[in-house]
Amino acid sequence: MLNHRSIRKYKEKAIPKDVMDKLLIAATRASNTGSMQVYSIIVSQEKELREKLSPLHFNQPMVKQAPAHITFCADINRFHKWCKQRGAEPGYDNLLWFLSAFTDASLASQNFSLAAEENGLGICYLGTCLYNAQEMIDVLDLPYGVFPVASLVVGYPDETPELSPRLPNEAVVHYEKYSDFSFDKIKDLYKETEESEQTKELLRVNEKENLAKVFTENRYRKSDAEMFSKKLLETLEKQGFF
Amino acid sequence: MLNHRSIRKYKEKAIPKDVMDKLLIAATRASNTGSMQVYSIIVSQEKELREKLSPLHFNQPMVKQAPAHITFCADINRFHKWCKQRGAEPGYDNLLWFLSAFTDASLASQNFSLAAEENGLGICYLGTCLYNAQEMIDVLDLPYGVFPVASLVVGYPDETPELSPRLPNEAVVHYEKYSDFSFDKIKDLYKETEESEQTKELLRVNEKENLAKVFTENRYRKSDAEMFSKKLLETLEKQGFF
Repeated sequence: MLNHRSIRKYKEKAIPKDVMDKLLIAATRASNTGSMQVYSIIVSQEKELREKLSPLHFNQPMVKQAPAHITFCADINRFHKWCKQRGAEPGYDNLLWFLSAFTDASLASQNFSLAAEENGLGICYLGTCLYNAQEMIDVLDLPYGVFPVASLVVGYPDETPELSPRLPNEAVVHYEKYSDFSFDKIKDLYKETEESEQTKELLRVNEKENLAKVFTENRYRKSDAEMFSKKLLETLEKQGFF
Repeated sequence: MLNHRSIRKYKEKAIPKDVMDKLLIAATRASNTGSMQVYSIIVSQEKELREKLSPLHFNQPMVKQAPAHITFCADINRFHKWCKQRGAEPGYDNLLWFLSAFTDASLASQNFSLAAEENGLGICYLGTCLYNAQEMIDVLDLPYGVFPVASLVVGYPDETPELSPRLPNEAVVHYEKYSDFSFDKIKDLYKETEESEQTKELLRVNEKENLAKVFTENRYRKSDAEMFSKKLLETLEKQGFF
């Protein structure tokens, strides 16, 4: 865990079936709500399919390069079918179960990722899965009751990047209850990040006066987030979770 | 990972600070969106506080018994404060960022759990966190922009339960695209579960004719799910994510 880095350059080598099976078994051993396993895992390895997925991840080169693209879905489709076949009336197409299934799928994805790393593979999560959920649904034939919540690429690493920086743990961890942050506390917590050489370089390249503006004006803009949130909600409705 | 079982009986022994610190560091090494760390972790160990949390988890005895209750939150509060201090206009109080932060918090929680198990501890996720998010917010003083997405108890196990059963992997894993299930396929996938001694005992205790009805009529009812979904949405709105 302590050595995790996201891998964005992969060798051409395919993942042997027995290795992939081990990762998938590790994934399904994660905790899940009520032993109902309301999630599914789509393993996409065909080149043509990965090429179709690539634009949904804004053409990040690793998506075509890595030998496998894995999609973790909240999935009440199988469970609903099972209930209906037995004359039981299921009620899992709603927000509570979307989020419960979202948790289950996420935990399975992290087990998968750690097992991959233990087996000499590297991974990179693709947050774009949420931006383009509807398009993922179309490409992967996801039926009503199935929603892609996390996707990643996996393969043999062809780079060893630096560990990615983290804020001091006191920025994230609260004891007993939440302790909200004073102006000075925020300044302290971000001091090291803001004064780093990496940040100075970013400000130069992005032509911004501070790091926060790199995030809000270049990387993750409010207007984009609002547009994608609207799209997400429409897709949630369509898949039956809202 | 393969030995994970949820632990519901704990010894009284407290978790040493150096052990807890290791788990928290492991948690923060998980992948996170844009290195923004839009999540937080609340470590609640005081007996009085755990007693206040207990009813929110429907008084499951392990909540009072385990020495620590951990809450993983989607959290844009700190990031928004940081942006505003720097004259940058943040736009993360919306559905897209709620779900991105939800993923980050979930991945951190799974790292925490696995690190705990490697250190001789046991854990049990509490899905009730989503049922009573508003009450969790009240007890833990979570401000605007912070939402509890996963909670668990952790401590030294005082039991070694059986591994919990899983469906055959073909129920969960799809290759290339999603292959929807035929009537017969569903029957096959659930055969072993439905014919097990454990299921027969459950049907007797719950006085139900089949396992699906144990879920839909006793454990997780549609009317409850709809009520809790409504409550969740109100809380999401209040915390600024919808």
